[in-house]
Amino acid sequence: MDPRRGHFRIVTKMNPIDRTHDPKRRSWVESANGHAEFPIQNLPLGVFSPREGKNRGGVAIGDAIFDMAAAVRAGLFTGAARKPALMAADQTLNRLMALPPSARLALRQRLSDLLSADGADRSAVESLKGELLHPAADCTLHLPAQIGDYTDFLTSIHHAANTGRFFRGGQDPVPANFRHLPIAYHGRASSVRASGEAVRRPHGQHQSRPGEPPTFGPCERLDYEYELGVWIGNGNALGEPIAIAEAGAHIVGHCLLNDWSARDIQRWESQPLGPFLGKSFSTTISPWIVTVEALAPFRVPQPPRSPGDPHPLPYLWDEEDQKGGALDCTLEAFLLTPGLAAKGLPPQRLSRANATDLYWTFAQMVAHHTSGGCNLNPGDLFGSGTISGALADGPGALLELSENGQRPIELASGETRTFLEDGDEVIFHAHCHREGFASIGFGECRGRITA
Amino acid sequence: MDPRRGHFRIVTKMNPIDRTHDPKRRSWVESANGHAEFPIQNLPLGVFSPREGKNRGGVAIGDAIFDMAAAVRAGLFTGAARKPALMAADQTLNRLMALPPSARLALRQRLSDLLSADGADRSAVESLKGELLHPAADCTLHLPAQIGDYTDFLTSIHHAANTGRFFRGGQDPVPANFRHLPIAYHGRASSVRASGEAVRRPHGQHQSRPGEPPTFGPCERLDYEYELGVWIGNGNALGEPIAIAEAGAHIVGHCLLNDWSARDIQRWESQPLGPFLGKSFSTTISPWIVTVEALAPFRVPQPPRSPGDPHPLPYLWDEEDQKGGALDCTLEAFLLTPGLAAKGLPPQRLSRANATDLYWTFAQMVAHHTSGGCNLNPGDLFGSGTISGALADGPGALLELSENGQRPIELASGETRTFLEDGDEVIFHAHCHREGFASIGFGECRGRITA
Repeated sequence: MDPRRGHFRIVTKMNPIDRTHDPKRRSWVESANGHAEFPIQNLPLGVFSPREGKNRGGVAIGDAIFDMAAAVRAGLFTGAARKPALMAADQTLNRLMALPPSARLALRQRLSDLLSADGADRSAVESLKGELLHPAADCTLHLPAQIGDYTDFLTSIHHAANTGRFFRGGQDPVPANFRHLPIAYHGRASSVRASGEAVRRPHGQHQSRPGEPPTFGPCERLDYEYELGVWIGNGNALGEPIAIAEAGAHIVGHCLLNDWSARDIQRWESQPLGPFLGKSFSTTISPWIVTVEALAPFRVPQPPRSPGDPHPLPYLWDEEDQKGGALDCTLEAFLLTPGLAAKGLPPQRLSRANATDLYWTFAQMVAHHTSGGCNLNPGDLFGSGTISGALADGPGALLELSENGQRPIELASGETRTFLEDGDEVIFHAHCHREGFASIGFGECRGRITA
Repeated sequence: MDPRRGHFRIVTKMNPIDRTHDPKRRSWVESANGHAEFPIQNLPLGVFSPREGKNRGGVAIGDAIFDMAAAVRAGLFTGAARKPALMAADQTLNRLMALPPSARLALRQRLSDLLSADGADRSAVESLKGELLHPAADCTLHLPAQIGDYTDFLTSIHHAANTGRFFRGGQDPVPANFRHLPIAYHGRASSVRASGEAVRRPHGQHQSRPGEPPTFGPCERLDYEYELGVWIGNGNALGEPIAIAEAGAHIVGHCLLNDWSARDIQRWESQPLGPFLGKSFSTTISPWIVTVEALAPFRVPQPPRSPGDPHPLPYLWDEEDQKGGALDCTLEAFLLTPGLAAKGLPPQRLSRANATDLYWTFAQMVAHHTSGGCNLNPGDLFGSGTISGALADGPGALLELSENGQRPIELASGETRTFLEDGDEVIFHAHCHREGFASIGFGECRGRITA
């Protein structure tokens, strides 16, 4: 039971708990045991390159990366795990994502057994560790898939209310449609980048005061937005919606996503057709896909709606989804400024929220997205929308934390910030905890602003 | 001189006129001579499959398709034309699009000579015509490229004003930013389809009256929007804008584009983040890429702005672009209803406009899109935005023609329409004419509504 929320955790049929979640399972990869992000219970999928090596698929295990291409060459996968293993070794994981969930489950179970300290094949596998394992610190991580289309949602009611106040004013800052549908817009796929790549401060048109002509120059209100990414697996044909009860099976896993936002550019350009260049200069994601299988222990019921909120329309409603469609996952955003770094101070936490603060489930996002017939493809990416909690440190963007630039944030270095300055680095982390289970994390989503 | 517009046509350095535009040049492919769409002066690029054959690149010539794969196998391309010819034979033309314009010009010149009635190699080429030519009627046309990202603009001031009145009301229906920047939003790439594919009427949420709860059901206000598509060639690196003077060189060519719109869904979902499912259920394009080289004779000066309109900011302003950045191209939208078809009546023309009605040039779209650092890739697609002229039959959408459904349109069959009904087929055509030059066309952009 989660005392903070007052409801029981349950596990849905779609997300079975099996031996791969056993908290007592240890790995012969020593750094994995007790690892805050990548214990043997996680096994996230990604694409990496070792020094002077080509891109290939890999799995994070402790401080190492398990080389799927080498493991396939060594003949470690047979039966139901063989096909997904071959595809998990690819330069992009789109083919793996197109497989049914059962194939990825078979892969996960085999990976867990291969890396387990008491696995049947331990001695054979461990003897190959020189080829199978790379120190993660020596590797470069890449986007795990070729992203066909990227869609960004707006599904946190606190964020909607906060930005509504700043961007639109008026009586009810929450848009009239917010409680009826998961609001979304199409984002830019080409500018999504893996963690670590620098983010150039965009130039653009902005207005210093309403009614004045715009000027063109560097963004003066550069912000972050912390979101959970959603990796789409098996897609749907054009014109054939995905029913809400089936929607979860079309999600492969999650990542962290920084929807960098140029607030001044966004504000001036967004009417009538929504955000464009204020967003599309860059989007940063954490490169590991934390799979829905790994996240099974952390599913919780979707928090009940407030009294008076409308009941979702039938195409968005599924009892099973309501029982386990939310994810108990704590997200934190940290800022490392040149001033903090100069004083040897650690990154300072600015925001903290939980993915249960989302008003809509991921299955509802999939069902809504396809409800008019729009087709999804393996490797498509969703952003959940900024996850802002109700508490003071809940907001997942500087726009909200600084109250639209009116209230500077004090840093331990003596600096202040309303928006991001050149040299600032934003770092996201997320972790899932549950008593009786090993905690898992998402790895880093990091980007530094350059001029 | 174009007496209707009162300005002289000029040709810019970027668009040379050469022997391939010679109106006296005739083809040994007889159907090409005098062809309304595809005379030898056009030579548009596409991807097709003959009956029971694989997809490959081709060139439209009269009523036939010139098979690039067969032509390459026959060794018809050497020198500078060889590399682009190889890539023009691909299953998608993305590699060809990534080449510099000079390569595509070399390909065009060689194609023109190969197909010319007085070409040096005529007898050798014509003797292979059994392999080189396919009757277009026996072939299926496909999307010419894998579309990475699709962006839809709003750059016709008449359309902006008309839709502004219907969607937003208020004093000035033209958005405040319209005259300062080419407004755009990210569209959905996955649901772009080649002409001929049926369009399923989308289901979605709509509100019958403001303040009432939405219902979910079939779209009741299904519309078309006629636009010119822009195919992007060579792209730019993330963070490196394309200067306006260079922007034209990043455009490969144009097509017709039907930005199908579910007005009721769009209206309810669009605030605050813009159109989403109201657009992404389907976008239809004409499958031939009419190249910028073919369009060279039809470039005209960008019409002057109205007195009082702001001068564009420097990053959007280039004298050369103003001299030849507009395209004199007439677009027509036709409707074929079951009633018209039953009476043997032809499709009825609903809309007619000229691409010179666009307020911004294509180069300005490219420069703006990349001004904040957003990267374009070969095979990206832009929609120009609905092209609505100032005249009564100018509007390029039923929303405008029927005055938001208030004024039914009378058809020759005795039927009326405010929006599209099941079984209705919308057909776009576009042609370029200039005295002293062969007229060229874009082929069809056609889609029928199904339930």
